[in-house]
Amino acid sequence: MARRAKLSHSGEQRETARAHILEAIRAAGSIARIDIAQETRTSPATVTAITAELITAGMIEEITPEAPPQAAKRGRPRVALKICGDAHKTAGVKVSRRIISAVVTDFEGNELASHQYTMERGSMPVQDLCTEIFNALSETCTLGGFSIQDLSGIGVGIAGMVDAKRSFVYWSSSMEERNVDLGELLEAMAPCPVFIDNDANLVAKAEHLFGEGRNVSDFIVITIEHGVGMGIVINNEVYRGSRGCGSEFGHTKVQLEGALCQCGQRGCLEAYVGDYALLREANITSGTDRHKDLASLFETAKAGDAMAQSILDRAGRMFAMGLANVVNIFDPQLIVLSGARLSFDYLYSDQVIEEMKRWIVQVDAPLPEVKVHGWGDLMWAKGAAAYAIEEVSALRIRELAANAG
Amino acid sequence: MARRAKLSHSGEQRETARAHILEAIRAAGSIARIDIAQETRTSPATVTAITAELITAGMIEEITPEAPPQAAKRGRPRVALKICGDAHKTAGVKVSRRIISAVVTDFEGNELASHQYTMERGSMPVQDLCTEIFNALSETCTLGGFSIQDLSGIGVGIAGMVDAKRSFVYWSSSMEERNVDLGELLEAMAPCPVFIDNDANLVAKAEHLFGEGRNVSDFIVITIEHGVGMGIVINNEVYRGSRGCGSEFGHTKVQLEGALCQCGQRGCLEAYVGDYALLREANITSGTDRHKDLASLFETAKAGDAMAQSILDRAGRMFAMGLANVVNIFDPQLIVLSGARLSFDYLYSDQVIEEMKRWIVQVDAPLPEVKVHGWGDLMWAKGAAAYAIEEVSALRIRELAANAG
Repeated sequence: MARRAKLSHSGEQRETARAHILEAIRAAGSIARIDIAQETRTSPATVTAITAELITAGMIEEITPEAPPQAAKRGRPRVALKICGDAHKTAGVKVSRRIISAVVTDFEGNELASHQYTMERGSMPVQDLCTEIFNALSETCTLGGFSIQDLSGIGVGIAGMVDAKRSFVYWSSSMEERNVDLGELLEAMAPCPVFIDNDANLVAKAEHLFGEGRNVSDFIVITIEHGVGMGIVINNEVYRGSRGCGSEFGHTKVQLEGALCQCGQRGCLEAYVGDYALLREANITSGTDRHKDLASLFETAKAGDAMAQSILDRAGRMFAMGLANVVNIFDPQLIVLSGARLSFDYLYSDQVIEEMKRWIVQVDAPLPEVKVHGWGDLMWAKGAAAYAIEEVSALRIRELAANAG
Repeated sequence: MARRAKLSHSGEQRETARAHILEAIRAAGSIARIDIAQETRTSPATVTAITAELITAGMIEEITPEAPPQAAKRGRPRVALKICGDAHKTAGVKVSRRIISAVVTDFEGNELASHQYTMERGSMPVQDLCTEIFNALSETCTLGGFSIQDLSGIGVGIAGMVDAKRSFVYWSSSMEERNVDLGELLEAMAPCPVFIDNDANLVAKAEHLFGEGRNVSDFIVITIEHGVGMGIVINNEVYRGSRGCGSEFGHTKVQLEGALCQCGQRGCLEAYVGDYALLREANITSGTDRHKDLASLFETAKAGDAMAQSILDRAGRMFAMGLANVVNIFDPQLIVLSGARLSFDYLYSDQVIEEMKRWIVQVDAPLPEVKVHGWGDLMWAKGAAAYAIEEVSALRIRELAANAG
């Protein structure tokens, strides 16, 4: 679908003003027109005209807040504007290895339904994956008492290399094909636009909106699951790089010509800290096929096995080194370690964090804060839904602009 | 000095509008008021009021561009506004190991005088360094036929860990002390405010304004001198991190518990590619004190000495690995390799660049472009002068705001 209508120069200005005003209303919860004019540096006349359009379009609504008693004396109470929750339903989906987590929210971001859907396999042909996502969404909508036809936008977070601007997946461990226009394939099945992003970017968005990153303008989220991922927030925006697939962390190199990684290169961080890397080591040292999963290796280490401990120890040190490099490059005020694998603490033990802090450039200034945030997959899905709300808002505003000419 | 007067909320809005308008005029070269209003999304009335203030303050001036013949018929020619070059003289200084490069520009950025000043030593007590900088500036001004008293602002680029916001140097190889308020010390000698930044940040600024980074919103500059540095431009701004000392490249780790670095840590990139690191290796393998500088090692390698070649080869590979990590994290569209040491090509040979490209995450999208830009130190100084112009503009605008109340 053509997401971008061609606009005149002044049309673009108007579109920007609409976006700023909607953003200001969303950020404030409820806000009077005169305060919107102040916030957005827009003339009161323009605010009046644009908010009228947004009301007609059903995106915002007027409310009359209860005035404090003394204010009432000074004339009629000021009317405020808020986002119209009923305007749109949007869905957020997180595709994990065996689970699809889905949430549907209203246009204000309030949760209407959520669901965890189990898949048979971790990786599959993309058409099968689309069917699974569609089924997960249908079940979620049914749980909420509405239909998938009611959705205005769907955000999908998936592991791998994703160009969010094009909803295009270069590569993902969840699908067998490379270079897939996943957005287009899903839109062929869905009743509405679909927006794809790297899952770690959507965690960063969720942390920024609902989690440890609230009111923090610049921070890093490191996700720890089967592999490690990263999302970067700079100046209150998710940083996506020039090809849309920036902030790769798991495949930064920690050793010249080091261990072979699943990606085919050598010395990647994931080749030292990923599940497969740990099991590869564990099963060489044990000489048998003893460890089928990480939990078993972890138990063995906790029980005092020196070899198992040494495997986890090295993984932790490599992780600390990779993290120190990111901190040296970004100098963030906050690092959030997030993800489901946080039940296994070998990557964020006090020792690992201390080592990371010793390996960053030492200046006499406070070190970045490290917060460990063990969120469930549903919060990642909420990040995807928040992304869908943003993109649906942008689409609606472009439609308004196109209609206005 | 107190750089920030306390302003009311609407005062801050006005200050922001002044800054935007001045920026628009600088970017355009010359521009009519009505076009400023469009560019900055400010009402024509506000533009008229603010430009009147800026004219009274002597920062901008009116010019009447020659109108094309047919336009002349349609009434009086439109008056345009431009930066007033005579408003301020600002200086830019780059402190290198044995040379101070200085340039003085007018308020439009035109060069008025430049000078290369030689120092006896590379590292010295900070008071001596201040005297050297002051002498270099005095000589530059004399060459231009004016006095150091005529300067309105001085920008200084220095290697090391600098908090630009506070003009505070945590550490620099050019001075013996740590944690020095270099801005304050220089301001005690200078007739005007002094603004300190990491030298690689100022190269990034210079590349953005005058060099390979013109019209590129996101790129990385890697500087190669005695050590390696990095400047990052994101969204047309130099990215400085939360403590002002972000984008450290030379001390990212390329080897767990690797070679000892001058900074006291192990495995830093500089411990493999810095001058001292190469000479350390060279002089162990030769068994004598044969190589006093890099030129001699380089000659030996060119002459076919396998040991010397192996030293430079490993340095190149480590550099490629460090660079690949930065590319993986940032996904920039452009990488500029800049600096004086570019006469020695072991760090940016085709082989190194190819290796870097092989070590970044492979997606079916264009690789970032790599440009090698062998600028002299004077261009770094021009970056420092450009920084001083920005900061002087901001100060003047704050004064206007404070006077307006």
